[in-house]
Parts: sequence; structure tokens; C-alpha cells
Amino acid sequence: MGGIGRIGILGSGSWATALAKIILTSQPSINWFMRREEQVRGFQRTGHNPNYLQDAVFDPKKITFFTDSDLNSFFRASDTVVLVTPSPFIKQYLKRVRSSSIRGKQIINAIKGIVPDENVLISEYLHDFCDVPNEYIGVVAGPCHAEEVVKGRRSYLTVGCFDLGKAKAMAEVLRNDYVSCTTSQDVVGIEYASVLKNVYAIAAGICNGLQYGDNFQSVLMSNAIAEMNSFVNTVHLLSREITDSVYLGDLLVTAYSNYSRNRTFGNMIGKGYSVKSAQMEMEMIAEGYYGAKCVREVNKRYQVNMPIMNTVYEILYEKRNAAEAITALTAHFK
Amino acid sequence: MGGIGRIGILGSGSWATALAKIILTSQPSINWFMRREEQVRGFQRTGHNPNYLQDAVFDPKKITFFTDSDLNSFFRASDTVVLVTPSPFIKQYLKRVRSSSIRGKQIINAIKGIVPDENVLISEYLHDFCDVPNEYIGVVAGPCHAEEVVKGRRSYLTVGCFDLGKAKAMAEVLRNDYVSCTTSQDVVGIEYASVLKNVYAIAAGICNGLQYGDNFQSVLMSNAIAEMNSFVNTVHLLSREITDSVYLGDLLVTAYSNYSRNRTFGNMIGKGYSVKSAQMEMEMIAEGYYGAKCVREVNKRYQVNMPIMNTVYEILYEKRNAAEAITALTAHFK
Repeated sequence: MGGIGRIGILGSGSWATALAKIILTSQPSINWFMRREEQVRGFQRTGHNPNYLQDAVFDPKKITFFTDSDLNSFFRASDTVVLVTPSPFIKQYLKRVRSSSIRGKQIINAIKGIVPDENVLISEYLHDFCDVPNEYIGVVAGPCHAEEVVKGRRSYLTVGCFDLGKAKAMAEVLRNDYVSCTTSQDVVGIEYASVLKNVYAIAAGICNGLQYGDNFQSVLMSNAIAEMNSFVNTVHLLSREITDSVYLGDLLVTAYSNYSRNRTFGNMIGKGYSVKSAQMEMEMIAEGYYGAKCVREVNKRYQVNMPIMNTVYEILYEKRNAAEAITALTAHFK
Repeated sequence: MGGIGRIGILGSGSWATALAKIILTSQPSINWFMRREEQVRGFQRTGHNPNYLQDAVFDPKKITFFTDSDLNSFFRASDTVVLVTPSPFIKQYLKRVRSSSIRGKQIINAIKGIVPDENVLISEYLHDFCDVPNEYIGVVAGPCHAEEVVKGRRSYLTVGCFDLGKAKAMAEVLRNDYVSCTTSQDVVGIEYASVLKNVYAIAAGICNGLQYGDNFQSVLMSNAIAEMNSFVNTVHLLSREITDSVYLGDLLVTAYSNYSRNRTFGNMIGKGYSVKSAQMEMEMIAEGYYGAKCVREVNKRYQVNMPIMNTVYEILYEKRNAAEAITALTAHFK
């Protein structure tokens, strides 16, 4: 990756679109995998993603599109692949990629979630199930609403890679007039932080739905970042500052945002919706719903004290009454 | 203070009113100093503060009022005095208190600011100018919008005192159904955090006025809490967790709140108002305006790297162009 080579983007949602926009600022052209033919046709006709971030205008000549039948060609045609599908779908793609297609490729995870069912991080899945060596696995994260990136508002990303030289090369690709990019070796910590912030955003939403105010929200965030710190330090000991924007900043932008799906989902739960009806109403599943289950599983091994995460888990999976659960939770806070 | 005795409140703004309400939940009666006779008369007639938080209803029989001419009687009649005036006014009161009136009294600072001109913390002023021994000096702080407290929404306070036993006794007084209260020995750190959060709220306002978005706001907060941590650890080394709600939580609730005077003031500066016209329009001076000057002075001795604080100072006091200054600041962030 020093030597990023040709970049391919796997995914077609708003964050995928924003990343494509950023990458095309420094790169002359990219590969882009979108599952459905009709989305590609819509894109080529209009010069923008027909479903997300329509304000982001592209020159279709700079994009080589791949669709569902071309998945292996897409990998073979790319040197670096950025994964940016919703987490529930990533496994079905990766399972179809042949080892010969993925061999030697740099894989950058931009999915903020885990691999459902397996309850493992994307980086772990890549390593354990797809035989990608650690030094070829990276992550890109940071407090970045896609909508703001597309408007050119100053944003900060962090690229993590076990191989810091490769992280630096990828950071170089992402930097431009309005995107700053730092580097890190903390792939695992960044991935877990991205998972946990969605769980904590659900917690923030639940409390909001229960009429807790701004005072409490700020206390919740303070305790959440401390809880995140305990967890990542236990699971993956490394010298890190939990106040760095890739951890704290990403938590804040997600949990304070009314656009956050996870917060919105939590808000409905707090207002009394069942998990099922909230999911039906939203027509999608918030990432943090899977995240809570994954971290709960992983934490059976580590036994970190995680009252916020456990409370969200019990409300979502064990039908614990939200009002009572949050009241009990407040006793843990400082 | 284990033995808080009779509590007196010095000040009549919204935070003073909220604290009075909290304290009267556990105490049968209090002393309350308000400068103007007519405010006391209005209070006695209506059962609420005529100027602030009118929804907070009191039983005037539980309150012994004191006005400007009774300042020394007020101190003599109280065992514990809670200071909760705007910071620009505290010096003129303390100067008029005779040593015989303040001797042996527990003084709790609830002012989020410093002593202007002197550029010292309230606790330092009490010690150096009023001869109050350190173990009689405390602080109460935390992420607490007065409006939410009065509505009975769950809030968290922290009492700091050099003498932890006294902090615990005061915390006991403040705790009730909706207020949680923890204790700390970090008087100096808590006071500086309260000063700095106002400076950072001005920064947040400036960036908002300049059209920076939520992504950037969260990065600003991440870097602000790290800067605060460096400063308080240098000025007053102590084992503290900067993610505790009295530090991080208070910063978040102030900087994210549209009700914050400091954020509003910063917002006007970001939109192009001069400092003077912003102050005139607001009919008041934001605490962070003095705070920036104080910390700048204090930091001449310690030389902590404080790019955010310095940027706010230069915009407010040296007419540095806000847009250019913030653009330069963004290069320091991670």
C-alpha cells in the first residue's frame, strides 16, 4: 500500500459515496462495486448516486463500475479495496470472493460494525476466514457525517493499519482541502470503538426517548467513553488516547446527532416501541443492535465492567423495561 | 463541614436558584443573600425568584433573606456559604466581608469563572486574600443546566474539597431523587475545568458561526478535552480521569448547548460581530471572555501547548481574524 495502487469501493450507501468523492479528489479514477445493475445505470445517466447523497456529483468516466456478477473481477481489478457495505451484508460478499482474487490486496474496512453471527470484527474475519495477512488489513474511521463531507465541511479521518507505512500511504490518498487524516496502528481498538459508539448512540436515544435531558446526556457520554476505554484497553492493550477524535469524536458525532440511525432507533425504544416495531418503522436495522450482541459475546471472555453496554443489550434482547433499566444504570454513573 | 450547619447562598441568578432548590430538599431552611431589596420583596410576594427560573417555587418561610447592607450578618448567620454570583462581582463582595465574619466558615465555590483582574481561581482568592484555610474551601460543579435541575431531570454534581470528609458531608446535602453527587479532592482541577469549558464553548460558537459542521465540532471537543487535560495535569498534578462528568460532561453540556451564553457569544464573533458589539447585543459578558485572559496569564508560567485557548484569546483580545485563526487551528487537530 505504499503503493496504494488502484482503489475499489465495495458498497453504494451514503458513506461509500462520500468516500468515493474524497478518493476521487486525489485519484484519477476508481473501481466501484454496486450490487444492482439499475443503480449503476442510474448513476451513469445522472452523474450521481440515485439513492444517496444526490448532491455529490461525479464524472462517470472516472469510475469503472462492477455489479453483482463481477465481484471477483472487481477484486482482481483493484489493488486496494475499501469495504463499506452495511455490516449484515459483508459476509455474503466476502464468502464469494475467491482466494486468488483477494490475494495480495490491501483491504480497508470502513464498515462501522461487526460480522453478524460470527461476532467478530471485520479485520478478524478478513484474517481468519479470508486469509488476509494482518499487514494488509486496515481501517478508516472518524467523526464523519457523509452529508457534511460532501458539502466540503472540514472533517477528520483516521487510517489504522498494523503496518504504519501503509496507513500513511492511504492517509495521503484521503487528505484534501477539507479532509484531514491521521494514522494509527490501533486497528482493533478503532474497530471496537466504531462498534461501541453505535451501542452508546442507542443508549443516548433511549434516554432521550425517556425524557432525560442534556445534563444527563453529557454524563452518559462521559461514562460511555470511560467504559469504551476499559474495554479496548482490556481486549487490545496499546498506548492510545481515548480522547482522540477517532474514539471520542466519533462517539460524540454519532450520539449527539439527530441523523444517527442508532440514536433514532434508541429513541423509539425509549418512547415505548418494541424492538421489532422500531425496526419495521425504520425499515432497517441499526448497526448498534448487532454491535451490542457481539460485544456482549466477546466480553464473556474478558468480563470488563460495562453497565451501559449491558443495559442496552438487556433492553434490546431480553425485553428488559427501558425506564427501569436506565434508572438502575444511573446509579453506576459518576 | 461534617457538620455543614446552616447553609447560606450568595447570589440570585438561575444557578443560585437551582442550588437553593436542591439544598432545600434536604435542609429545613437556608439563608439567602440577594443584593437588591426589591428582588427579595418580589420573591417573598410570589414565592419564586422574580428574575430567573420562575418555575421553581419556594416556601419563603424557609428562607432568611439578606440584602446588600447585611452582607456581614449573612456570613455570620451561616456555617457554610455557597458562592454563586457572576464572577465579575465576587471580589466586591468578598472585600467587604470582615475576617471575623468569614472565620471558621466553610466556603463552597459554585462560580464557574475566575476573579477578574487578579487572574486567580476563586479558591486561590479565598485562601490568599480572605485567609480561608484550604480545608475550608470547596467547589461544586458538574454538567447542570439550572433549567433541567428545576424540572427534576436526573443531574450529576461533584463536590471537591481538600478535606474529603467535608466534601462527603456537602455531597450528602445535595443528593436527592434527581441529583446524584460524587466527591473529589481536585478543587483546583475542577475550577480550571469550569473556566476552560467556557473558553472552549466560545470556540465551539465561533466555529458554528463560521459554518463548521458537526464533524468538526466533535473533533474540536476531542482536542479541547485533551488540551484541558494537559493544562490541569501540569498546573495541578493529581490522579484524575478527565473523562469524569465534572470535566468532560461539563464541557459537553456547555459547548453543545444552544442556551450557553459562551457558545452564543462565540457564535456572534464567528458571524462577524466585533467583541464589543456582541457583548452589547447580549447585554452581558460571557464568563469565557475573562477565562481566556486568566488562563493565558497563568499559562505564561507553565507554557502548556494550548492552541484552542490561544486562538480564542487572540480572536477576542488581539482582533485576530476568526476565519483565518480557525483555519490555522485545524492544522493542530487530530
